[in-house]
Amino acid sequence: MIYFDHAASSYPKPATVGEAMLEAVNEYAANPGRGGHQLAERARMVIQEARKEIATFFNAPSGKHVWFYQNATMALNQAIGGFPFVAGDQIVTTAFEHNSVLRPVHRLTQTKQIETTYIKPNDDGIISMVEMNEAVTSKTKAIVISHASNVTGAIVDIQAVSKLAKRVGAILIVDASQTAGTISIDMERDGIDLLAFAGHKSLLGPQGTGVLLSKKDYNLEPLMHGGTGSYSESSEQPTEWPDRYEAGTLNTPGIAGLLAGLKEVSALGIEKIYSHEQALLMELLSGFKQIEEIEVFGPTQLEDRLAVCSFRLNNVESHELAFILDEHYRIAVRAGLHCSPMTHHQLNTVDTGLVRVSFGPYNTIEEVRKLVEALVEIEQAF
Amino acid sequence: MIYFDHAASSYPKPATVGEAMLEAVNEYAANPGRGGHQLAERARMVIQEARKEIATFFNAPSGKHVWFYQNATMALNQAIGGFPFVAGDQIVTTAFEHNSVLRPVHRLTQTKQIETTYIKPNDDGIISMVEMNEAVTSKTKAIVISHASNVTGAIVDIQAVSKLAKRVGAILIVDASQTAGTISIDMERDGIDLLAFAGHKSLLGPQGTGVLLSKKDYNLEPLMHGGTGSYSESSEQPTEWPDRYEAGTLNTPGIAGLLAGLKEVSALGIEKIYSHEQALLMELLSGFKQIEEIEVFGPTQLEDRLAVCSFRLNNVESHELAFILDEHYRIAVRAGLHCSPMTHHQLNTVDTGLVRVSFGPYNTIEEVRKLVEALVEIEQAF
Repeated sequence: MIYFDHAASSYPKPATVGEAMLEAVNEYAANPGRGGHQLAERARMVIQEARKEIATFFNAPSGKHVWFYQNATMALNQAIGGFPFVAGDQIVTTAFEHNSVLRPVHRLTQTKQIETTYIKPNDDGIISMVEMNEAVTSKTKAIVISHASNVTGAIVDIQAVSKLAKRVGAILIVDASQTAGTISIDMERDGIDLLAFAGHKSLLGPQGTGVLLSKKDYNLEPLMHGGTGSYSESSEQPTEWPDRYEAGTLNTPGIAGLLAGLKEVSALGIEKIYSHEQALLMELLSGFKQIEEIEVFGPTQLEDRLAVCSFRLNNVESHELAFILDEHYRIAVRAGLHCSPMTHHQLNTVDTGLVRVSFGPYNTIEEVRKLVEALVEIEQAF
Repeated sequence: MIYFDHAASSYPKPATVGEAMLEAVNEYAANPGRGGHQLAERARMVIQEARKEIATFFNAPSGKHVWFYQNATMALNQAIGGFPFVAGDQIVTTAFEHNSVLRPVHRLTQTKQIETTYIKPNDDGIISMVEMNEAVTSKTKAIVISHASNVTGAIVDIQAVSKLAKRVGAILIVDASQTAGTISIDMERDGIDLLAFAGHKSLLGPQGTGVLLSKKDYNLEPLMHGGTGSYSESSEQPTEWPDRYEAGTLNTPGIAGLLAGLKEVSALGIEKIYSHEQALLMELLSGFKQIEEIEVFGPTQLEDRLAVCSFRLNNVESHELAFILDEHYRIAVRAGLHCSPMTHHQLNTVDTGLVRVSFGPYNTIEEVRKLVEALVEIEQAF
């Protein structure tokens, strides 16, 4: 089987990920930070190591600034829904956001009368800094943006966005679900205030893991209230980090798996992963030139995009095309709207959806060629 | 090592739990319900099976009424924080609740001006139905209660509480974290509206799993907004269940592990598990009679309590006692306030905390005897 759906979940995982999870479940399944015994202590140590490694990897101030959630959506709900917006505040975001950003932002417009400005990407999927500059005002309290589109692969210049945010005293919330583990992210260098990402995509960890990194104290209201194993005598969430933002028992096996995935990414080298995936993308785009009836979306310049590519063939409904690829060629891709509705409105692809191909570190040029050959055959058959 | 901290996290897990998780990570780590290919379909099928099994086990209407979260705290935040309370509504709860109930309820008193009445247990830890009956009024919109205390093990008569709730048209929210997998729970028979529990305790699943079962539509506001892989074109959460209450990628390996744990509980038989743990508790309580300076908390009648027992020896600070048991005897217990502050105020044990012993299906009488012997030695040494 050829797996080209890494933008949804990476597969296969490094063997060390499953091993770390199995070890957690079979050898120290106790409750981290809530026991008075060695097993609980071992669980606590693994989670502490994961915090530290993640903080180092993204240059967050310390492990206390690393908060674990079940997915990036939850991390984004904590960041966006938890920020102390008041009526009349403005959020600037983009029309290429995933629903994990669009829906929490939309919710705020209803519950807190927040105004939202959506920057539209151009036909290549690129967000214009000129337009964003015009959108940002003294009322802007936050810019919320994905580091890269999960549909077009278009990458945003985060440092440029950060400068705009700083100019008006807004904070910058970044959804790095598509880039964490593929593109170097440095919270300090890039000027990111709150950084959310999934553990199960390019970081090669398991599903059930999401992370929010908070550079400073933005006075976020906790998404959840509950037991923290600390300050148990108080009916308020503790003020101490990470406890304040992590009520309830953590997903120790998942976090142990994420730590193993992160170590694999470090061992492979993030620049090498990026170059490898870019080479696969070049091969794909070059192969597409053989196919007349294909429409390819996303930036034309390779340096503006991730190894994520969406296309449409003969105007075939995307699920049908994905089904053929899966059934006849055993090639796994994703079809549909990819939880990113405005992108499809912009691209005028709501009716058919798009087939999306996304690469991981273990994919090969040979596999890409097989996909191109399959598409050539399918084009001829239609 | 002897492990007596099952009320925090069960250990060891059945081998099938780790195996199911490893299979999920290594063989079908794709994104459930969000692909157009076989791996994603396999992930979806496993999650669907887990929903169905859980619905059957607790007699919920269908798998759609089963919502997955990262822990019971999150499930309770969805239930309590999501319920459409308005100012002046009353919540009736108890003083023996875990912070996973106390803190979200307390938060509502601040954000929505909800009135809360806390029923105090008696000296045995038992909640009086007479007092609860007096507390419930026409303003009561919800009774929120743990099925059993995680400190004293005292079990609440849920059917009696349900009758009180129905009398005034209040809903009944039950935290079954301590009982799911140990005591039979039937949402229909027991009259439970919203049932929350952890997967990693007596259900023998992994950490990172929590569940909320909703009998009917209570118009809960989703805790999270985000992508659901469905109705992607809308910026609102879909109304369809479970999608409405499950934004973001689910924890497939964790849910696969929970399914395996649940199957093990079914295979062992919940009544047999209960009887076995009660036999261990009887052995413990009988052994305690040899120890003069021990104070044991919780109901005196065995049928009123779970196999969870908290005690204090020679007024020693609980962490010190747990440390000695761990270091010198390799017996894992839990010390402290157990995230249940009001219980300790009631028992007058805030200063020392309590050592808690909790049993699982694989513990033996021999292990209990070793604990008693250890405590006899420790008493003599002090």
